Amino acid sequence: MPITLSDIQAAHDRIRPHIHRTPVLTSVSIDVLAGCEVYFKCENFQKIGAFKIRGGMNAALQLPPETVKNGIATHSSGNHAQAVAFAARQMGVPAYIVMPSTSPKVKVAAVQGYGGQITFCEPNQAAREATLEEICRKTGAAFIHPYDNDHVIAGQATCAKELIEDTPGLEVVIAPVGGGGLMSGTALITHYLLPQAQVWAGEPEGAADAVLSFRTGKVEKAPFVLPIADGLMTALSERTLAIIREHVNEIITVSEEEIKAALRLVYERLKIVVEPSCVVPLAALLKRRDEFAGKKVGIILTGGNVDLGKMGEWF
Amino acid sequence: MPITLSDIQAAHDRIRPHIHRTPVLTSVSIDVLAGCEVYFKCENFQKIGAFKIRGGMNAALQLPPETVKNGIATHSSGNHAQAVAFAARQMGVPAYIVMPSTSPKVKVAAVQGYGGQITFCEPNQAAREATLEEICRKTGAAFIHPYDNDHVIAGQATCAKELIEDTPGLEVVIAPVGGGGLMSGTALITHYLLPQAQVWAGEPEGAADAVLSFRTGKVEKAPFVLPIADGLMTALSERTLAIIREHVNEIITVSEEEIKAALRLVYERLKIVVEPSCVVPLAALLKRRDEFAGKKVGIILTGGNVDLGKMGEWF
Repeated sequence: MPITLSDIQAAHDRIRPHIHRTPVLTSVSIDVLAGCEVYFKCENFQKIGAFKIRGGMNAALQLPPETVKNGIATHSSGNHAQAVAFAARQMGVPAYIVMPSTSPKVKVAAVQGYGGQITFCEPNQAAREATLEEICRKTGAAFIHPYDNDHVIAGQATCAKELIEDTPGLEVVIAPVGGGGLMSGTALITHYLLPQAQVWAGEPEGAADAVLSFRTGKVEKAPFVLPIADGLMTALSERTLAIIREHVNEIITVSEEEIKAALRLVYERLKIVVEPSCVVPLAALLKRRDEFAGKKVGIILTGGNVDLGKMGEWF
Repeated sequence: MPITLSDIQAAHDRIRPHIHRTPVLTSVSIDVLAGCEVYFKCENFQKIGAFKIRGGMNAALQLPPETVKNGIATHSSGNHAQAVAFAARQMGVPAYIVMPSTSPKVKVAAVQGYGGQITFCEPNQAAREATLEEICRKTGAAFIHPYDNDHVIAGQATCAKELIEDTPGLEVVIAPVGGGGLMSGTALITHYLLPQAQVWAGEPEGAADAVLSFRTGKVEKAPFVLPIADGLMTALSERTLAIIREHVNEIITVSEEEIKAALRLVYERLKIVVEPSCVVPLAALLKRRDEFAGKKVGIILTGGNVDLGKMGEWF
């Protein structure tokens, strides 16, 4: 069953009491550099510091009461872990989070701060899945996948929905692509609300699986070379790839240097703290500015949960 | 002649077309840590990235036409230089800026970006003043002092005016003190609009001249030990000291470590980019939290023009 406009509208109504309506910021100097009008949807100001609460909350709120009472669970090294922990706390149920032992301290502390129960595992996909399966079997908790889940995708779509509502006349929307939850939700809602608009994706060269899958039509793996935009080191699923192939114009890949330049621009000009993954769409826009000349372009800045100790490496 | 409420109201009307009304942000987790409600007036989002445009613009707009046509001038290593350059551009006249040869590159570039004509000098007060005097003599440009000027003080006061208007029930206002332009303007407008409210100041231990002057009643010098909050390495003037002594409750000094902890909190929780000088009031609040327990406290975050290359030293 495809995700419909009314699914996304219902998701928005469902999660609205739990989320912020984040601001859309602009910068005259970035517009001059980009040669177009750029509208930044600032999910770094969202609850838990990232858009992921939208999908996690929507999925948790749709679980049957007899399931959710045992708690919710996931494996994640990043913002989805915080989203599940936060959603569980809102609902008064336990959260079980499997995190790789290499997870950034700031993200571990945040999950703990929301009362999540963390189990550490070896930093590989097999260990994450096996550890999670064991926990769900023991506790009866429900697994909420970070992106391969229609309720999660419908929740993430509410971010572009707000951007479109708050920015009349938008002609292009650009989002980053990792597992494709945000990207597919963004593509769907833009298709429903602004059928004439284009949707583009940005992806780091160091995690360029989506651009490959987009071309071949199959979920492909690509080597991840620890890009600065480490939040995007995830492969698509069949589900997200299908939506992205149908509704996304093109995936632009960007280099580490292009990401760092865009990151500097956001810190210097917008004066906000964002994760490097966030600025991949801006880097993509600047790289291919001729495509967007003079247009009204919306960009989703996905989150602001940074390890401040890394800043010395970025700038 | 004292600066009156109507002087400040007129200043606000005068500069309003040239400035942003910046947002007031809050953070549940900072409130918990502080034990009170904190309202952050975010002048990092102001034009030129700092509140200084308020005072500089107000002073420039009050110069007689026959004076201003020759241009405006100042010596400054920081945000006041940008304010004068921006104000001159708005008015279509030249800006002559004397900057110490040690000025951060990002601030030099910003002044150049606004079309300011920079003359570098030795990094000491005598060289700055002599160089500026020579330029003003040659060009006929008018000197706008960064703080020892009633029009500048009235302009800076508009920042707390907006904070008070946008935050009903405010009981305390805290601002940082360097030369005292913002601090005296903040104290005056709070006295006029909220006579029952308290005004406090925060000052780095590494530039603790104001706390000494506040005690003795004379403008005192103190050794500046290059504090992280380098925007506050300025002595008061007779004019600003008199206002501060009359209307400020107390000046709290904070250590480098206290400033760094507050800086981390603002970056991690508010997700915004601010200069270290900004967070001195928050550091002061956290140091003396018993004074403010349960109160509604407004804090002015003065600017966000940071040298990103420094972040590795801060965090």
